[in-house]
Amino acid sequence: MTLATCESGLFISFEGIDGSGKSTQVSLLADYLRKTGREVVVTREPGGSAGAEEIRALVLQGDPDRWSAETEILLFTAARRDHLERLIRPSLAAGKVVICDRFADSTRMYQGLSRGDLRETVDTLHNLMIGVEPDLTVLIDMDPVEGLKRAKGRMGTEERFEDFGADLQAAMRAGFLALAAQFEDRFRVIDGAQSVKDVSTAIRHAVDTVLSI
Amino acid sequence: MTLATCESGLFISFEGIDGSGKSTQVSLLADYLRKTGREVVVTREPGGSAGAEEIRALVLQGDPDRWSAETEILLFTAARRDHLERLIRPSLAAGKVVICDRFADSTRMYQGLSRGDLRETVDTLHNLMIGVEPDLTVLIDMDPVEGLKRAKGRMGTEERFEDFGADLQAAMRAGFLALAAQFEDRFRVIDGAQSVKDVSTAIRHAVDTVLSI
Repeated sequence: MTLATCESGLFISFEGIDGSGKSTQVSLLADYLRKTGREVVVTREPGGSAGAEEIRALVLQGDPDRWSAETEILLFTAARRDHLERLIRPSLAAGKVVICDRFADSTRMYQGLSRGDLRETVDTLHNLMIGVEPDLTVLIDMDPVEGLKRAKGRMGTEERFEDFGADLQAAMRAGFLALAAQFEDRFRVIDGAQSVKDVSTAIRHAVDTVLSI
Repeated sequence: MTLATCESGLFISFEGIDGSGKSTQVSLLADYLRKTGREVVVTREPGGSAGAEEIRALVLQGDPDRWSAETEILLFTAARRDHLERLIRPSLAAGKVVICDRFADSTRMYQGLSRGDLRETVDTLHNLMIGVEPDLTVLIDMDPVEGLKRAKGRMGTEERFEDFGADLQAAMRAGFLALAAQFEDRFRVIDGAQSVKDVSTAIRHAVDTVLSI
């Protein structure tokens, strides 16, 4: 079940490897939708609500071996549940468009890569505690070498999930494309090698199509 | 499946309402077992490992409405998973006796009380992410008025689960007794109205019986 079928807003998630330009495109889409008179909430995962941000800090800071994959999945699911209850659902119920930088597909992709044997656990937990998917998931697909070049331009303190080389980025790309094939109804794959403006236009088109249904 | 069937140690949990004397009896049992030459690890939930203690702080501090019941269950399960992986399992594998002040039965009891509709969710999460029960669960059963009188003697900063009146303590008592009936193979109900010494003797007897099997 997607959220739009039971709420009056629209829930859009963005996925893609590091450096794919997600943040820029999220901003551009938000600006566009606001100009059309829509109320827009821009958020991100992990995090997005006060509690979820605290859980995010717990997961992303410190020793990479601090949590097992299983504990990490539970913490991410707790953060997602809080985000959904405190921000996403109320915003959608108020008729707003929610644009989220990463959602459950990122969890599926990362766990599929590092611990493929946990995919069923991830799905069971998602169905049990989250139970919703975005109405539209924009995947900005791009060559990992190009993505890595862009990502290196900005360095933060939360590098656990970004401190990866090109091989791993390539595996992530493949993981996202596999999810796009699995959930083809809600995924739109956008070619991230285009100019920022062209990517933005393609995303607007995808969103307009969903909004006009 | 209990842990002792696949590990060489023994996993004992203590349950009971506030003021039932769990902490005192945990210490007395640990002393006794150490005198018999056993290596003993005393721990508690929520918490018990470095990561789980951080999750405990996240759950127990702050506004009582900070987390929904669902998010709280996820956080407790994450803490329990970490505790199990980092302390309980390795200790049992090394042949030690693990004595834990509260375990999954406390989650079952509290959620059953406040959100009975979540009992199935609690069980599903437990089976999916924890999957083990103590070899022996000591329930110190006592009259809530007596328990409350004792609990008032010590006041801490983590009062969310302790700031309850006698009616709620009575419901908790009933909840624990229902769990003892449901899991009668591993539960031993000890009359907490006895003297500290008599309670201690009854617990030793229960543990000796399990150890001699």
